[in-house]
Amino acid sequence: MMLTEKPVIAFLDELASSAPAPGGGSVAALSGALGAALISMVCNLTVGKEKYADVQEDIKVLLAQSESLRKELVELLESDVQVYTEVSKAMKMPRATDEEKAARTVAMQQALQAATGVPMRVAEACVKIMDLCRPTAEKGNVNAVSDVGVAVLMAEAGLRSAALNVLINLRTIKDEAFVAENRAKLDTLLEGKPAMRDEIYDLVVEKL
Amino acid sequence: MMLTEKPVIAFLDELASSAPAPGGGSVAALSGALGAALISMVCNLTVGKEKYADVQEDIKVLLAQSESLRKELVELLESDVQVYTEVSKAMKMPRATDEEKAARTVAMQQALQAATGVPMRVAEACVKIMDLCRPTAEKGNVNAVSDVGVAVLMAEAGLRSAALNVLINLRTIKDEAFVAENRAKLDTLLEGKPAMRDEIYDLVVEKL
Repeated sequence: MMLTEKPVIAFLDELASSAPAPGGGSVAALSGALGAALISMVCNLTVGKEKYADVQEDIKVLLAQSESLRKELVELLESDVQVYTEVSKAMKMPRATDEEKAARTVAMQQALQAATGVPMRVAEACVKIMDLCRPTAEKGNVNAVSDVGVAVLMAEAGLRSAALNVLINLRTIKDEAFVAENRAKLDTLLEGKPAMRDEIYDLVVEKL
Repeated sequence: MMLTEKPVIAFLDELASSAPAPGGGSVAALSGALGAALISMVCNLTVGKEKYADVQEDIKVLLAQSESLRKELVELLESDVQVYTEVSKAMKMPRATDEEKAARTVAMQQALQAATGVPMRVAEACVKIMDLCRPTAEKGNVNAVSDVGVAVLMAEAGLRSAALNVLINLRTIKDEAFVAENRAKLDTLLEGKPAMRDEIYDLVVEKL
């Protein structure tokens, strides 16, 4: 059964347990998906409203983007569990002989590199959701502006949660070029985002 | 059907729709519940481990607190929908005569005051989860320390999301004493929390 097909309460129970998945990586993707869903909600509360006739086309573009990001993040939530399972499998490979040790190391390193790609894509998607928040706060239904504030908080928390999951993998990856490239990518994604989150939060509070 | 009994994917679909609930208030409670569940997970990965023999009693206390907060936040998630429904009902009351208008105003004000209590309790619970994060990062299984980082991000995002939902209600509440009291309570809850979140995040990154 897919993780997102489980009831919310069961998802929380499994998260709280010592079972290997879901974990913080899944929560990062879910947090982003919640942010995207809230942007979609605000857009859906704006579409077709006479008061917002001038921005209908802009809102439809924002809605298409948020729905595409929401779909992507749900897929990444499921992928996170799969790549984590591969890391666990590699970790359990035998290491009695030198050959076994070498094979295990290769499998571990491959699995860790693959596992790093998922939270990196979550981080990228969360940044894209943050980019939708200001135009949605400015053009969307003002009665739902607090929901844009929640969206930016969830997207930024998703971004930094994903960053932690990239960093924990990089700690064990031996390919220095891979590590350097991914660190640089992460730094670019994170740059200025806490300030952006607070600016949008303040804009929302002003409009309340 | 309770909201938390729905599959994660259905919860996200309903959130994204223009339906009145769930909305940002539910996401605030869910964000806090995700944070609490991650603290529980880290504690569950520490309980019974010989390497952490010295901190078993502390971890059990942290686990009991995080589980109690998780339960409370799931209940608050459901309550948020109920109190919001009462506000919607009051809003739809007839207002053809002066008597009807007066009755509607009384019902609206009562429903709004009740609806403010729920996100305020969510905010309080999120602060309590933030308080569990530093001891869990310091004493819990270091292999899961990134999950404490995700927990503090989710708890703080839940706190500020709840704050937005308190503020949007206060905007329409006419009882000045109630508004002043709730604003003061909220300010106290929010004070220093972004700095606390960043300190714990940095502590986690150091331990990665």
